[in-house]
Amino acid sequence: MPPQTVAVIGLGLIGGSVARALSARGVRVIGFDRNRASLDAAISEHVIEAGLDEELDGIARADIIVLALPGDAARDIIPRLARLSTDTTLVTDVGSAKQLVVQEAEAAGIGPRFVGSHPLAGDHRSGWHSSRADMFQGERVFLCPASTTRRESIQAAEDFWISLGAVPSTMDALSHDTRMAWLSHLPHVLSTALALTLRDAGVTRSELGPGGRDLTRLAGSSPEMWSAIAQENGPAIARAISSFEAYLEELKATVVAGDAASFRACFAAGREWFSEGSG
Amino acid sequence: MPPQTVAVIGLGLIGGSVARALSARGVRVIGFDRNRASLDAAISEHVIEAGLDEELDGIARADIIVLALPGDAARDIIPRLARLSTDTTLVTDVGSAKQLVVQEAEAAGIGPRFVGSHPLAGDHRSGWHSSRADMFQGERVFLCPASTTRRESIQAAEDFWISLGAVPSTMDALSHDTRMAWLSHLPHVLSTALALTLRDAGVTRSELGPGGRDLTRLAGSSPEMWSAIAQENGPAIARAISSFEAYLEELKATVVAGDAASFRACFAAGREWFSEGSG
Repeated sequence: MPPQTVAVIGLGLIGGSVARALSARGVRVIGFDRNRASLDAAISEHVIEAGLDEELDGIARADIIVLALPGDAARDIIPRLARLSTDTTLVTDVGSAKQLVVQEAEAAGIGPRFVGSHPLAGDHRSGWHSSRADMFQGERVFLCPASTTRRESIQAAEDFWISLGAVPSTMDALSHDTRMAWLSHLPHVLSTALALTLRDAGVTRSELGPGGRDLTRLAGSSPEMWSAIAQENGPAIARAISSFEAYLEELKATVVAGDAASFRACFAAGREWFSEGSG
Repeated sequence: MPPQTVAVIGLGLIGGSVARALSARGVRVIGFDRNRASLDAAISEHVIEAGLDEELDGIARADIIVLALPGDAARDIIPRLARLSTDTTLVTDVGSAKQLVVQEAEAAGIGPRFVGSHPLAGDHRSGWHSSRADMFQGERVFLCPASTTRRESIQAAEDFWISLGAVPSTMDALSHDTRMAWLSHLPHVLSTALALTLRDAGVTRSELGPGGRDLTRLAGSSPEMWSAIAQENGPAIARAISSFEAYLEELKATVVAGDAASFRACFAAGREWFSEGSG
């Protein structure tokens, strides 16, 4: 049975898209955003049926609660949610790192009803005005239950994301965070390092071709969100950066030596990986 | 006056797109490709009116010759073109590095008729089947004349690219190559280093989200073309890599130290650069 009412806390790029996707499917959405203009826009666009106040009074009505705040803010609010929403089937979040939020949910006593979610969707933009109903269509979402999560809450999380068009897969939070350091966090760090490098070289983004624009798109991401992720998943991200640095150093050495054969072999191996994973 | 006949040597992603764009505008196109299937396809699709043989007999009929081969192959063919095409208004190429090809044109005695071109277009794909008529629409193209190039040949090059929808700007070959190390060559190297890093971590490209896919798209580029570029522009590329490495090392240090404020400051500076240059 689909949920009757979903509460979305935080109506930015991801939370706003969750709200839009639910609303487009006829689900009743209630919600809150610190930014009054975003909340008002969500209500006037008939995406959110009712706004909650800062105390989140009335959130107990929700069958499912989606926390769509930066990692540290999401963790901070969990104890209050635990007190307010004793009957909720599922509490979930949308953050890019999962160990700390799962730990916080267990510490607050809502482990049985909590499943961490990480939709591998979104782009460099942020805010309600960038959200869209089809954000999750065909995209992967990782689900990380706590050790105490009830089976029906895990099922509810899977059904929830499938109903929004996403493709869920379940793994423990530690495995997730380790893997995301490679899949997602490393690319973000590289894009920002490239942005700073180009800035120093006096290159503006408008001068770039399609390839350079691709590589620097993630540099437009939210600094607040990414500093929270870097703090949560620091050791794994540092390992991924070190591994990348070794390959970059190898490529630089072939360039310096004018070793075209080794350079070509690296590019051929990169293209082979690319081709195997591109539909 | 638009050219009556243009010869395109090499019908891959860029050469094929030049031929399609010309043909769509009613220009007569003759051409050659080593790959007989590509040449046959171009003829049967009525893009190329006449195929040339390997000796390039008949190329003297062309008002403009476009060399669309990897850098080293383009340079190898220039002496033969110099002998065959004494009346051609313009000989140009499409390579991503410009110093060596301009030097070769001058050495072969066609400096007065030669303008190096670098359309900042294309994508990771290659081959005739990936070419498209609108490839250059709104994209930048850098023009690098030789010191001896006649004014009318420079004008012909500008008119040529404008007619294909591109936005030309002229600079000397050394300035061009130095700049391209940052704008284009560095992003290609980073994308390949990321591909190899992810491969070693057991990550396939199909597992990535939109951001990771953006960052690894250029890893699908032609190894032959890019090893030629790396060899031509090695010192400038090595300097760009070193500059990038310094920022990456700085970001890694903030991650390792758990220094969220410094990490956020880097991401905020990257986003500022991103926003200034994104329309």
